[in-house]
Amino acid sequence: MKNILLLLLLLSLRSGPSLPAAPQGEALSGKPYEDVANTIITGGLATGRAYEMLSELTGSMGARPSGSPQANRAILWARQKMFDMGFDSVWLEKLMVPHWVRGPVEEAYIEPMGAGGRIPLKICALGGSVATPGGTLTAEVVEVRSFEELRAMGEKARGKIIFFNRPMDRAKISPFEAYGGAVDQRGQGAVEAAKAGGVAALVRSMTTRLDDVPHTGAMHYADSVENVPAAAVSTVGARLLDSLLSAGKTVRISMRLSCETLPDVEQANVIGEIRGSEFPGEVIVVGGHLDSWDKGTGAHDDGAGCVQSIEALRLIRAAGLRPKRTIRAVLFINEENGLRGGVDYASRVRGVEKHILAIESDAGGFAPRGFGVSTDPAILAMDSAIVEKLARWSYLFAPIDADRIRAGGGGADISPLGRLGVPCVGLRPEAHRYFDYHHSDSDTFDKVNERELELGAAALAILSYVIAQEGL
Amino acid sequence: MKNILLLLLLLSLRSGPSLPAAPQGEALSGKPYEDVANTIITGGLATGRAYEMLSELTGSMGARPSGSPQANRAILWARQKMFDMGFDSVWLEKLMVPHWVRGPVEEAYIEPMGAGGRIPLKICALGGSVATPGGTLTAEVVEVRSFEELRAMGEKARGKIIFFNRPMDRAKISPFEAYGGAVDQRGQGAVEAAKAGGVAALVRSMTTRLDDVPHTGAMHYADSVENVPAAAVSTVGARLLDSLLSAGKTVRISMRLSCETLPDVEQANVIGEIRGSEFPGEVIVVGGHLDSWDKGTGAHDDGAGCVQSIEALRLIRAAGLRPKRTIRAVLFINEENGLRGGVDYASRVRGVEKHILAIESDAGGFAPRGFGVSTDPAILAMDSAIVEKLARWSYLFAPIDADRIRAGGGGADISPLGRLGVPCVGLRPEAHRYFDYHHSDSDTFDKVNERELELGAAALAILSYVIAQEGL
Repeated sequence: MKNILLLLLLLSLRSGPSLPAAPQGEALSGKPYEDVANTIITGGLATGRAYEMLSELTGSMGARPSGSPQANRAILWARQKMFDMGFDSVWLEKLMVPHWVRGPVEEAYIEPMGAGGRIPLKICALGGSVATPGGTLTAEVVEVRSFEELRAMGEKARGKIIFFNRPMDRAKISPFEAYGGAVDQRGQGAVEAAKAGGVAALVRSMTTRLDDVPHTGAMHYADSVENVPAAAVSTVGARLLDSLLSAGKTVRISMRLSCETLPDVEQANVIGEIRGSEFPGEVIVVGGHLDSWDKGTGAHDDGAGCVQSIEALRLIRAAGLRPKRTIRAVLFINEENGLRGGVDYASRVRGVEKHILAIESDAGGFAPRGFGVSTDPAILAMDSAIVEKLARWSYLFAPIDADRIRAGGGGADISPLGRLGVPCVGLRPEAHRYFDYHHSDSDTFDKVNERELELGAAALAILSYVIAQEGL
Repeated sequence: MKNILLLLLLLSLRSGPSLPAAPQGEALSGKPYEDVANTIITGGLATGRAYEMLSELTGSMGARPSGSPQANRAILWARQKMFDMGFDSVWLEKLMVPHWVRGPVEEAYIEPMGAGGRIPLKICALGGSVATPGGTLTAEVVEVRSFEELRAMGEKARGKIIFFNRPMDRAKISPFEAYGGAVDQRGQGAVEAAKAGGVAALVRSMTTRLDDVPHTGAMHYADSVENVPAAAVSTVGARLLDSLLSAGKTVRISMRLSCETLPDVEQANVIGEIRGSEFPGEVIVVGGHLDSWDKGTGAHDDGAGCVQSIEALRLIRAAGLRPKRTIRAVLFINEENGLRGGVDYASRVRGVEKHILAIESDAGGFAPRGFGVSTDPAILAMDSAIVEKLARWSYLFAPIDADRIRAGGGGADISPLGRLGVPCVGLRPEAHRYFDYHHSDSDTFDKVNERELELGAAALAILSYVIAQEGL
């Protein structure tokens, strides 16, 4: 801590604007902004509004996939919230988003293998999948753990449903790393299945939890091969299939998906800001994404990040603070299946407004543990000391155990800003529960703890305010 | 980190036994025990058994209050688990425990105040309470926020049900501190109510969560005043009562409790150990408590600590490690309403066995964040540098973000060992959800995350093994 104080002292001797703001009642001899941070934390815990907002967002709108009427309602709701909270400016930035719908039917059965009846499997279409052709598709299943294994299968895969069953590696300490090691099956499975002559892709759900809840998520097609339907199967279903296939059984599955892609729809990013008192043209973005998948109600992904972003600005106002630079809450649309909101926002501000820092909360509304700083090469080239610059404020987050400021992080929606050279930071919450709920019917309000959610909002408020005062 | 390495190097030059054990494959130039720690962590995440054990304990035995048949079955189950896992020795240490039972009925109603019918209130008897005399007790309610307020009420409290409604302070960052600031109402409320001439105590549940689930917990009586019945009311019920009373209404409640205290029962602490290869007479205790309240199934409180303690020893064995000192899992009985297991254990080992360190997990099975070291004056008098001694190993817990080793902590069951001068440490998990579930029907297996639980066990295994090798 002494080194930080020395550094701050040196900085304060060098340049006026780097001084902790005297009106905030900060003593130079103490820890700058400590009182402000504690006021924000206490205010968030005692009278925070994030949890109440999340209850409204998930309860009244529910799931809000891009292009849906629910997403439209969420946009209007969020704009109204920002108005009600007295932000200096509130506006929508319209853009076209994709509109994929699940349709009324998704079902799968293991066809009878002996005297018994068929066995239902819990599946859900992956986002972007086509429907099963001709209503119901019935075919034999082959199981693989990698694309290499599938390719090596040769003709054996032709006409089959390809069952991708490489689990997330439970031994990884970071669930996000485990996810990263398995999610190619979901994104690329349909393309690889089609390349191998398969008729559909059935992908083990992206979770380490053993339950009967399938998890959806984005997938894509390639122009060069046929678009085959793709669905996720629950981990319980995956285990059943694996046990049958490992025992040498011939397994036939009938499946039916009724999903389709409709024409693009106009929706919008929702934006509200507290205007900077000294450098209004210098912006700190705090954001999350307003769209969700159509399973559950998108409570952790990313209703949490949205209400925390609004709440961060409210906490700053409620503490009586007036930031020198502009702090802007941006609720991006279409993170899940297109990133068009993030791309649109970056394209609008490029060359127009100076962005100092972009912060995203999109890793769940769990207890905050710190921040992850993007190590995207474009950003590092600009300023390799970004982690250190942010880490000098880590003591402000120590009282809530959220002081781990490290390389590695960011957020999908702010990544287009990152490619413009804006330093990007992701709120890093406790991670172990995230994939239990992610993209599934389990991602609901009751999985969110009030205090954890409010503390995340407080952490966003503290970081954005300090950078608004001090710059980077 | 350099300072730690320098310290270790100096230690290694000074004394042979302090050297990191070569057979464990630790390089002196690296971070001692880092490989061991990573092996334990990876083993816990990939193939840990704590979650499966907790499923059995909560599913087959359910709630297991002291003296109950379920507690008896849990004792036999735990002994069998330790046998099955091949611990060197497994035994029971029998003792007499109190046997309080809730009985078949607990109910309360707000009596009709106008044309409407009576309104049910969700209540539960506090542990140790007497039944309501004569079946149903009906009286007017007075609300207070402190014992001072009650005393100042004078004759106005006579014949009334005293409603203690001081909430846990939501603004406190530590939920345990908020609990500590309110729990006197639960423990002492019946005595204070009786002193004031009240006929019963109705206490706001100890949680910051707003829901309709009452939370039980220990209370006590005093010989000098009458034993009046005491119950907890849900926070939703407390809010309703407060709103009626604040509006100046006269509120009458009828309540009925059928609880009673039966004769003491013989039960036991369950103990298993891995015997030390060099200093078998020097013991490290790792424990939790096997009894729970009779609400929910005691999943977090403290089924988690029990299965983590067993699992810690299993992980050490599974990693092929042979500790120099004895590592002993102790599942204490009767933490909740007597602490007789903890007292009995300490009285048996006093003057017989040297205890190096006692570690308890009794703050829930949430993601571990570090360890809290007891600052009990008796221990500090013995060795004020205990936090620093333990903190030199904090780097071993950094990969799982559990490296915060700080003053303040311990555990109730090991506190009698602390009074003998044994340094006491409590596993410190993420804390914000704990009081949502604590002592209520909400404390069930589904509130526990597998990875978080297993990581807590890994943290216990690492600390106990390192101290078994290095001493304190």
